[in-house]
Amino acid sequence: MKPRLALLAVLWTSLSVAGASEPAWLALPGQAPELASNPSTPAKVELGKMLFFDPRFSETGTVACSNCHNVMEGGDDHRPVSIGVHGQKGGRSAPTVWNAAFLSAQFWDGRAATLEDQAKGPVVNPVEMGMKDLGAAMDRIRRIEGYRPYFAKAFGPGETLSADNAAKAIAAYERTLITPGSAYDRYVLGDATALTARQARGMHLFAEVGCSSCHQGPNFSGPALPVGTPFLMKFPTYPASPYVATFDLAKDQGRFESTRSDADRHMWRVPTLRNLVYTAPYFHNGTVKTLPDAVRVMASTQLNGTLVEADVVDIVAFLESLTGPFPDQQMPRLPPTPGDLLQ
Amino acid sequence: MKPRLALLAVLWTSLSVAGASEPAWLALPGQAPELASNPSTPAKVELGKMLFFDPRFSETGTVACSNCHNVMEGGDDHRPVSIGVHGQKGGRSAPTVWNAAFLSAQFWDGRAATLEDQAKGPVVNPVEMGMKDLGAAMDRIRRIEGYRPYFAKAFGPGETLSADNAAKAIAAYERTLITPGSAYDRYVLGDATALTARQARGMHLFAEVGCSSCHQGPNFSGPALPVGTPFLMKFPTYPASPYVATFDLAKDQGRFESTRSDADRHMWRVPTLRNLVYTAPYFHNGTVKTLPDAVRVMASTQLNGTLVEADVVDIVAFLESLTGPFPDQQMPRLPPTPGDLLQ
Repeated sequence: MKPRLALLAVLWTSLSVAGASEPAWLALPGQAPELASNPSTPAKVELGKMLFFDPRFSETGTVACSNCHNVMEGGDDHRPVSIGVHGQKGGRSAPTVWNAAFLSAQFWDGRAATLEDQAKGPVVNPVEMGMKDLGAAMDRIRRIEGYRPYFAKAFGPGETLSADNAAKAIAAYERTLITPGSAYDRYVLGDATALTARQARGMHLFAEVGCSSCHQGPNFSGPALPVGTPFLMKFPTYPASPYVATFDLAKDQGRFESTRSDADRHMWRVPTLRNLVYTAPYFHNGTVKTLPDAVRVMASTQLNGTLVEADVVDIVAFLESLTGPFPDQQMPRLPPTPGDLLQ
Repeated sequence: MKPRLALLAVLWTSLSVAGASEPAWLALPGQAPELASNPSTPAKVELGKMLFFDPRFSETGTVACSNCHNVMEGGDDHRPVSIGVHGQKGGRSAPTVWNAAFLSAQFWDGRAATLEDQAKGPVVNPVEMGMKDLGAAMDRIRRIEGYRPYFAKAFGPGETLSADNAAKAIAAYERTLITPGSAYDRYVLGDATALTARQARGMHLFAEVGCSSCHQGPNFSGPALPVGTPFLMKFPTYPASPYVATFDLAKDQGRFESTRSDADRHMWRVPTLRNLVYTAPYFHNGTVKTLPDAVRVMASTQLNGTLVEADVVDIVAFLESLTGPFPDQQMPRLPPTPGDLLQ
């Protein structure tokens, strides 16, 4: 076997153990895991979809979850970093909501344990949806009378219009935003024709050079871990990579920014590789514009190597096989707005 | 008949002629009229829906047609005035896109002859979608490779990715955004149970006091006029109404602002009254928060009268009967974004 990655000899030895053995290639399950405390029901999913698309509980009434997590496309917002209320730019690129239900922790740095916890973050982030607090957001929802029957249907009668229930409904909806059945999935489930020869070659290269050390499991986001335990890796592992400066990859210190713990410097949750065709530009700061560049960056910053161009092409072809299919979705109907809700 | 509106005697006399006779109550057709130059096809509608929901041809990549014309709700944006790119506020309240296909001219002041013309306006408005020009917008669309087959399907092979074709597709989609079959429509088509007694009373009052002099026809937006001829009325007709100051109704001079012709001072296209339940706050500047207030304002500024409260309630009940039904809609799938499309 000719070495595919020009690595420091010592590294090659250690990596080749993990890299050369084929990983367990797993298909994405047809259902996402859910919390015992939030079993999915059609009523919750319906309400969650309404809330996900409702801009009215952002300060200006213009920013819904769906603005930065556009499920009509890649579940992100196509931008390097997102833009929230008052035209303010966020600090990181919006991660895709597609298949987020399979992650053991949420946000780029894994600081939210669950989809339910995550859903409450952007609402009160001053540069995202900009509400003063969750109480103010729920006051908005409560004033939209038409939401009451939907909360009642999802959570029973009584005072069920709470931020916790809104977050539960949104999480239940997000658990439907999954894409099993990609070409890759069909291939590993036995359809040998589902991948092109190039894609199949790229798949084995992906393992051979070491990508699958971290990007493993059905969602290519790491091993199965308990809910709330993010699968974290250091990025960049090799800070001397010339790409670190080119793409400004080390300025944001990842999980350290929220924990202020030295152990968390440059630690990031390993993101899914599904649907990358739809989620350019790449990385936490959105500086890497193309999938071939993203592969080159990873080989350099994480594996300290350089891939030959033919291998970049093959690995990209494999990554493209992780695309869709996206479920057909009906648009939600949102209840009417009181005329004095927004200023 | 007791006079429902306390009017100046001379006015009452003139108005009562139009007001007292029942107008022709017409149901909304099941299909919107289309231009001979733009016959609707399923392929155009599909492409138009994609474009309508695509934020990528706004400067920041964050503002789609659907942001200010939210068809998951009332076809407007729930706000007094809209917010476009960079958090900039527009000068007027977004008019609803629902049933706009039945209007003889577009925008509050009727300055666009057709839906096709209208569609090109907000794209290059610096406070709405903010593109330098339509060429720049189409450059964005052209760079999204996945659009090519959809344009080819809608407009044939060859170089069909033009702003004119994009506008035609959006217009074709908008012609599907219609709401025949409301309680009112069912009533005038023969279902005597479709309106409540209060709504039926409100309907006749609506004619009796003179609302239907202007708000006539199946869309309650005026008589059938040739395409491009707006049905314009002066608003406020009675500038001494105390509501003019309360709601700042005369500052914006309507059609005059675009034509600079004295004859157009305070002239406005008569808007539809369908789906008002969903389109608060009301009027061109979004200052009137409730439907009862909107009725009181109109009685005062347009008919120089004051309705008794019981009549306001009945007319509001009638207006509520002009709501929906909104067609079920599948979300469009948008093609992937090149990573360097947006900065």
